[in-house]
Amino acid sequence: MSFKEEYQRKVESTEEILRKYLPAREGYQKIITEAMEYSLMAGGKRIRPVLMREFYELFGGEGRLIEPFMAAIEMIHTYSLVHDDLPAMDNDDYRRGRKTTHVVYGEDMGILAGDALLNYAFETACTAFDQEPAKSSVIGHALQILARKAGIYGMIGGQVVDVKESGHSISADILDFIYRLKTGALIESSVMIGAVLAGASEEEISKAESIASKVGMAFQIQDDILDVTSTTEMLGKPVHSDEKNEKTTYVTLKGVDESGREVERLTSEALEELKELGHENRFLNELLEWLVYREK
Amino acid sequence: MSFKEEYQRKVESTEEILRKYLPAREGYQKIITEAMEYSLMAGGKRIRPVLMREFYELFGGEGRLIEPFMAAIEMIHTYSLVHDDLPAMDNDDYRRGRKTTHVVYGEDMGILAGDALLNYAFETACTAFDQEPAKSSVIGHALQILARKAGIYGMIGGQVVDVKESGHSISADILDFIYRLKTGALIESSVMIGAVLAGASEEEISKAESIASKVGMAFQIQDDILDVTSTTEMLGKPVHSDEKNEKTTYVTLKGVDESGREVERLTSEALEELKELGHENRFLNELLEWLVYREK
Repeated sequence: MSFKEEYQRKVESTEEILRKYLPAREGYQKIITEAMEYSLMAGGKRIRPVLMREFYELFGGEGRLIEPFMAAIEMIHTYSLVHDDLPAMDNDDYRRGRKTTHVVYGEDMGILAGDALLNYAFETACTAFDQEPAKSSVIGHALQILARKAGIYGMIGGQVVDVKESGHSISADILDFIYRLKTGALIESSVMIGAVLAGASEEEISKAESIASKVGMAFQIQDDILDVTSTTEMLGKPVHSDEKNEKTTYVTLKGVDESGREVERLTSEALEELKELGHENRFLNELLEWLVYREK
Repeated sequence: MSFKEEYQRKVESTEEILRKYLPAREGYQKIITEAMEYSLMAGGKRIRPVLMREFYELFGGEGRLIEPFMAAIEMIHTYSLVHDDLPAMDNDDYRRGRKTTHVVYGEDMGILAGDALLNYAFETACTAFDQEPAKSSVIGHALQILARKAGIYGMIGGQVVDVKESGHSISADILDFIYRLKTGALIESSVMIGAVLAGASEEEISKAESIASKVGMAFQIQDDILDVTSTTEMLGKPVHSDEKNEKTTYVTLKGVDESGREVERLTSEALEELKELGHENRFLNELLEWLVYREK
């Protein structure tokens, strides 16, 4: 089986889990469960839950304890997109070729669907306490990581600075802050939660965090490079959008060549650190390489 | 000390706890911590955290384990007000005589401040795991209640139906659903979390839920009555607003007299159930009476 086929299987298995944890479409509040499903099941690479399970298995995790957290991380990623697309934010009517949630359900329901997904992420993750009551302590640790990395010291913090600085030319320091928090934090929390729930040591958890941090940064820089070097057909979305929006990116600060070298450096360091963890995993190696050297 | 003085002291102690758990105003994302503080420290009755601690102590709870959850429930209540006030929702420029969060910080930051408060509520509640690692299992149970009652089967669910039905005449069934979820659910979760963290039995937790459910409903009906019978000076906000907005309320469905009898019935049942719990608590008795017979 090729890497692509293997990845596709893992995406399908992730989507089955998402479906399983989605709330039933019933009751007077049915419209909100429809809006949640509309946004959550809109496709996407499902990178975070796939990475989470890979790291869970890398550290010897077995069984279904990881599943509510896989669903939770994707719900959090999705709510952030739903709120990002709102008229007061990026004001996007389309995402991945489909109308955005607020366009279909109204702006009020767009706000509430985002709130509902964020809240339901924690509700879903908390079902792990019922699943394995004896593991309450590690589940609590995983929840702390989930909350921290999604909040003002994680994703929301990065989003706040991105919104605040939009339209200004920004320093390399601030750009680094935005990339680390807005993109990096959820990827870090994915692999850390996988490690924690598998019973990894503090040292292993922190190594996993470091790998994810490098992958997240390389992933984001590659995004900047593709916006300059790819074509709209290849990317499935308009290229040169950063230039049009006068956005400061890694490429505008350092140029395409230097950016490419940075992606290579970060990726090879991440792969080296993965090797040092001492668990063989061919798929995970290929996954990290694909994530950063992807062409869309 | 009069009831009013005693309540005021408990409010002050609650606000100290809120301040303690607020994130520091620092870092590139400082603006969001300012917006969180602006909305969270805007005053209010602090009913939910005060009730939470009363029920904690009623069931013998001691020490500070309750504090992160007191902060969390008020953060959740506050985020719901911040998002409620947004232009796409109720579009309110003022709340309690102050400009609303999105008016001061911009609509984008209003959305993000609400998200941040909801997320930070869970982040704050999760600090309880560090405080008392040996109690991970009851802390997990408390988190489950917090998430469930704030979500689509609780507060958000009620808000969704309220928004969806706004401008329509609605049935007594739907009105009951909205009141139980939008107002009742967070009050229920407050007393349940107090009971859970104090180590109460399942039966006691469920009795606490029943008391809170009745108090929440009586509280909301009293709101409807005051809108008809009070004055703007007394209430500190415009009266007859429900009539102006053609809103279906308990009073428009049943009339003022029948509504008053319902408040009395619910309150005396709640007080009776509180007595049956077998723990004397004069303050809590007075609190429940004040909550429903208040004049503003």
